Amino acid sequence: MSTISTIVHVSGMTCGHCVSAVSEELESLDGVEEIDIDLNAGGVSKVTITSTQELSPSEIGEAVAEAGYLVVANEA
Amino acid sequence: MSTISTIVHVSGMTCGHCVSAVSEELESLDGVEEIDIDLNAGGVSKVTITSTQELSPSEIGEAVAEAGYLVVANEA
Repeated sequence: MSTISTIVHVSGMTCGHCVSAVSEELESLDGVEEIDIDLNAGGVSKVTITSTQELSPSEIGEAVAEAGYLVVANEA
Repeated sequence: MSTISTIVHVSGMTCGHCVSAVSEELESLDGVEEIDIDLNAGGVSKVTITSTQELSPSEIGEAVAEAGYLVVANEA
């Protein structure tokens, strides 16, 4: 099965606990297979979501917000 | 019942998740009634432990290490 990679940028994560919190919320979305987070503590972290179906920006944004963080523009 | 306050300094905590992790480990020690953490993200945070019995530096150090952090000298 082919998969889709979606990259978003998230601010406010500072440690492995933050990474776990965001990963857990994103993994709960339909079709999500893998989350890879390149933590940039205190800055903007790159989050790569691998899924079997397309994800909407709003569902990703809501999941990240649920974990307590914010999706920001790529170059914020 | 009278209580004892013990203050230690812990490095490496960056967010509320870190505070929760350290609090949980310290609360599991015998006689501990309350934990107050003054988070200094990226620096040294002040941790005040209120307990009904004296706590040894080693048991405090081990609990903090269990959470993944380090007790440091006061002025580190």
